[in-house]
Amino acid sequence: MALIVQKYGGTSVGSIERIEHVADKVAATRRQGHQVVVVVSAMSGETDRLLGLARAITERPDPRELDVLLATGEQVTIALLAIALAKRGCPARSYTGAQVHILTDSAHNKARIRDIDAARVRRDLAEGRVVVVAGFQGVDEHGNITTLGRGGSDTTAVALAAALGADECQIFTDVDGVYTTDPRVAPEARRLDRITFEEMLEMASLGSKVLQIRAVEFAGKYNVPLRVLSTFEEGPGTLITYEEPEMEQPLISGVAFNRDEAKLTVVGVPDQPGVAWRILGPIAEANIEVDMIVQNVGEDGTTDFTFTVHRNDYPKALEILKATAAELGAREVTGDDRIVKISLVGVGMRSHAGIASRMFEALAKEGINIRMISTSEIKISVVVDEKYLELGVRALHEAFELDRGPVPAAEGAAPAAGEAPSGS
Amino acid sequence: MALIVQKYGGTSVGSIERIEHVADKVAATRRQGHQVVVVVSAMSGETDRLLGLARAITERPDPRELDVLLATGEQVTIALLAIALAKRGCPARSYTGAQVHILTDSAHNKARIRDIDAARVRRDLAEGRVVVVAGFQGVDEHGNITTLGRGGSDTTAVALAAALGADECQIFTDVDGVYTTDPRVAPEARRLDRITFEEMLEMASLGSKVLQIRAVEFAGKYNVPLRVLSTFEEGPGTLITYEEPEMEQPLISGVAFNRDEAKLTVVGVPDQPGVAWRILGPIAEANIEVDMIVQNVGEDGTTDFTFTVHRNDYPKALEILKATAAELGAREVTGDDRIVKISLVGVGMRSHAGIASRMFEALAKEGINIRMISTSEIKISVVVDEKYLELGVRALHEAFELDRGPVPAAEGAAPAAGEAPSGS
Repeated sequence: MALIVQKYGGTSVGSIERIEHVADKVAATRRQGHQVVVVVSAMSGETDRLLGLARAITERPDPRELDVLLATGEQVTIALLAIALAKRGCPARSYTGAQVHILTDSAHNKARIRDIDAARVRRDLAEGRVVVVAGFQGVDEHGNITTLGRGGSDTTAVALAAALGADECQIFTDVDGVYTTDPRVAPEARRLDRITFEEMLEMASLGSKVLQIRAVEFAGKYNVPLRVLSTFEEGPGTLITYEEPEMEQPLISGVAFNRDEAKLTVVGVPDQPGVAWRILGPIAEANIEVDMIVQNVGEDGTTDFTFTVHRNDYPKALEILKATAAELGAREVTGDDRIVKISLVGVGMRSHAGIASRMFEALAKEGINIRMISTSEIKISVVVDEKYLELGVRALHEAFELDRGPVPAAEGAAPAAGEAPSGS
Repeated sequence: MALIVQKYGGTSVGSIERIEHVADKVAATRRQGHQVVVVVSAMSGETDRLLGLARAITERPDPRELDVLLATGEQVTIALLAIALAKRGCPARSYTGAQVHILTDSAHNKARIRDIDAARVRRDLAEGRVVVVAGFQGVDEHGNITTLGRGGSDTTAVALAAALGADECQIFTDVDGVYTTDPRVAPEARRLDRITFEEMLEMASLGSKVLQIRAVEFAGKYNVPLRVLSTFEEGPGTLITYEEPEMEQPLISGVAFNRDEAKLTVVGVPDQPGVAWRILGPIAEANIEVDMIVQNVGEDGTTDFTFTVHRNDYPKALEILKATAAELGAREVTGDDRIVKISLVGVGMRSHAGIASRMFEALAKEGINIRMISTSEIKISVVVDEKYLELGVRALHEAFELDRGPVPAAEGAAPAAGEAPSGS
């Protein structure tokens, strides 16, 4: 008997028929002898409907009250799922975030979970009940309703799994696992049986829509085994766990990419301490998130400073940067919002030389010019012109033979890797 | 500066435009220097929509989970109203029933309020905020969400007013007060400025739809001044208070009636102790509510036992009664589901003889045959054939001169009286 936390997203509970289907799946898991905690999102479309009501009053609804409003979305789903489970003779009890004391900070609309009191859930499980919990929501220390921000239901599930010491946290979505890259871009993309937390994090931050990055971080921190699988098809999905020594070691897990990037460069900045801070400070104050940052060694006492932002933020970032550049006495500001980022991800990279050169070779063979390079422990990212996205992804997928199944690293061949249906 | 609890029902908050209108009214009350607590229902149609979702799964949804579901209706309204108030620069904070600790018993779908912890509300009021509370819902001692049953928002408002020691509890509806009778039946019906709790109770139980009977009982018990007034028109409405000695004493407040009655008679029951119980026990067990009960003294060791029920319950009650009658050895069972009840209501009746005879005279003049009579301290009810409803109501309204304003009882004339838009 295992303790399993299952999470079903908005599409999975998008209609009464789908809620009944989820109830079938949950009841089946319980019949297999497992204890089950279910976390659900609002029915698809419901959060937008509620937002629409608030925005019909004002474009800037009070954040506290917006949370009170949005939290009803998941509350409807937990009740309906519990009703559907009871109908199947499966004893169930639903709880809002406040009822199971999902304690968060008071940052309305984007609260972070601080603590969960799992005692109530444990009691119900011990009494043979399925526990249905509203995702996405919590309560602050003053008793105010909070929400975790869009997609926060994944985080709720992982946090509950951690608090309960669950054997597995299963995230049910409309895809059947994590892929070596987006099958829409590279049809030969392959579902991975396993991937590490770190790889998944790099995937997620690069645009994968399978899992919320916060949820993966949380799962990694508390070592909660995460499984991504499909609500609508049977299958083992993809298991996300810590790297295990005995695990066959693929060099590269996948090719991730992000379409919506733009880059900005301050050319000829005086090469002095504090420059990076003076450039990025005003950007951060404007709530613009910065992705890659690259700075080269200068020659004549000046340097070039480049960073990327989401394409939507480009005009605003450019305006801010021009003002900063004038203050700093920089030569000029250049930018380009027709670029994309392509990344190779894999824990195998750590111990293996030659990956980067093989990557650059594959791109060069296709005549793709690299505009920026940035690397981390388990990732190499390049920025290229937008038009090369599909060509670049396919070239890398092929060069690292990601369409093949895992091959022991000892055999020296380029083994399998992994990516998620990644994001436009 | 007064502390005022205002309650707005589903029709009053039935759209974004109407919620904005309510926000205007609330903000205006606050600008007059009053402290305001607002209780709201779900937007009209919302409770039915939610019920529809549950019933699409099963005809008998789990009661606990149904409450979790239905409670979202008011939660949406409180958030939207608080957002609309904030937009007007009127500081406001919304609370669910659980958040302000509206403690109820655990009778899901029809819970009763046990206690309210008003400390949180008081704190907000002291800090200058309008407090917006979800009607209709509470929380039991185990933290489960409960609902008070349909129309329970009135009860929430009165309970909050009692807990806070409010100066007045204002119930905003789509009518502008309590009338001497239904203006659709008697166009000369007049809005009453005041009415006593007891009279209002008799009105409500007779079919008035202005106020929940539970709310009036609650208000009477805790002596909370209640005012019924219109959301859509300006006006003083009707104040419901305790009878005050110095108050001008109208004999009769109004003429109430109930269209949906049916009567059943067991003829020739042995006149023994326990007979009433043996007849009504099976009726109560079938959850059929009994209204009037009349038993005449018997002559030949048997008696006739008559009671009225809601017309919808007539076929079932008749079937049960036939079985009971056979067991008791009664002669026969008769019934009629084409009858109505007309009642004169007024505290003045207590101290005044001759009201009954004047009532019967007025009906006799119109050739209306009285089928049953029942009286209480402040009410005389008669059952007549359905076809005489309008004629009877108008005859009594005229006989007691209810179209005239209050006249001191000392002058001897039949002074004004009161009733609510009463109900088919």
